[in-house]
Amino acid sequence: MARQVTGPEIERLIQAMAKLPGFGPRSARRAALYLIKNRDKVMGPLAAAIAEAHEKASVCSICGNVDTRDPCTICLDERRDRSIICVVEEVGDLWALERAGALNCLYHVLGGTLSAIGGLRPEDLNISGLVTRAADPQTREILLALNATVEGQTTAHYITERLDGLHVQVSRLAHGVPVGGELDYLDEGTLAAAIKARRPV
Amino acid sequence: MARQVTGPEIERLIQAMAKLPGFGPRSARRAALYLIKNRDKVMGPLAAAIAEAHEKASVCSICGNVDTRDPCTICLDERRDRSIICVVEEVGDLWALERAGALNCLYHVLGGTLSAIGGLRPEDLNISGLVTRAADPQTREILLALNATVEGQTTAHYITERLDGLHVQVSRLAHGVPVGGELDYLDEGTLAAAIKARRPV
Repeated sequence: MARQVTGPEIERLIQAMAKLPGFGPRSARRAALYLIKNRDKVMGPLAAAIAEAHEKASVCSICGNVDTRDPCTICLDERRDRSIICVVEEVGDLWALERAGALNCLYHVLGGTLSAIGGLRPEDLNISGLVTRAADPQTREILLALNATVEGQTTAHYITERLDGLHVQVSRLAHGVPVGGELDYLDEGTLAAAIKARRPV
Repeated sequence: MARQVTGPEIERLIQAMAKLPGFGPRSARRAALYLIKNRDKVMGPLAAAIAEAHEKASVCSICGNVDTRDPCTICLDERRDRSIICVVEEVGDLWALERAGALNCLYHVLGGTLSAIGGLRPEDLNISGLVTRAADPQTREILLALNATVEGQTTAHYITERLDGLHVQVSRLAHGVPVGGELDYLDEGTLAAAIKARRPV
């Protein structure tokens, strides 16, 4: 703002909000005003939640999940099948797979994908930790749940090579028609993959 | 999430983030992970900014602007023309007008509009405060900068009636073609208003 219309503390709040993903200057102003308008019901709890998470959140030293304890809730969960490790790019992917509820296994978060453009090299990702875990006799399957992008598939190839020689089965997610998807809107690559992997009814 | 995949503190952070305007469960998870990933650069400053604004933000007792002092920065600004009071619905409108930079006056925030549906009555809005300020001899013009909606215009009519008899000039924003707007995309009401208010070149 050219002229000063509000206090510096509120300007700072707007600037801090604008750094959130999906927020720009306008939505940050809107959110800041909403917070101030709902001081007790929304702003107080949010301030407490951020401060608490800021103090306690940590990255699991085994799998890379974000939690407030280390090892994380999943790594400590005795009811999970410890013979399968599902490899994901980011913590958000892990949470998405858990919401699907189709897996009951351990995870391993790489922290990104190999990328010539982004400049991420194998040593920037948590791949050596994965190799160590894969070598554990109780591990029998490594499920690569990486994004179906060039970077994701490059990373999957690289990991498959690194795991070569270990007594683990390496698998990947199936390609195909998304549930609820309309064929007319799907790209040729997906359709070709779905045809190639067709299954008897 | 059906099963627990992270700590309760992080769940609380996600739930608190999801209450922000424009955020849903997915974007709240994304933002929470972003915060945790950028713990020192983004999360710390945001926590401090929210806590500080939570402590200090208040509503100006004269005009209704949000600031960290009362009276607010604008009401205390001696370089402003104190003979004009611009009436807006919300604080966000005040800030938007200030960004336009075409006014150098005082403001008055109503806190909403009269609405049969929303149930806001004249006594729910800060209208009596406006009448008091309009009766001040130094006030010469009340500029109604309300939204061009049914509620905004109803409220403008109501305020005009309430100010009847006071020695102030009541004005409103011009209707017309938005700068940069294409005629083909404008509604008939706007075009009719722009034609009616046409001006010699």
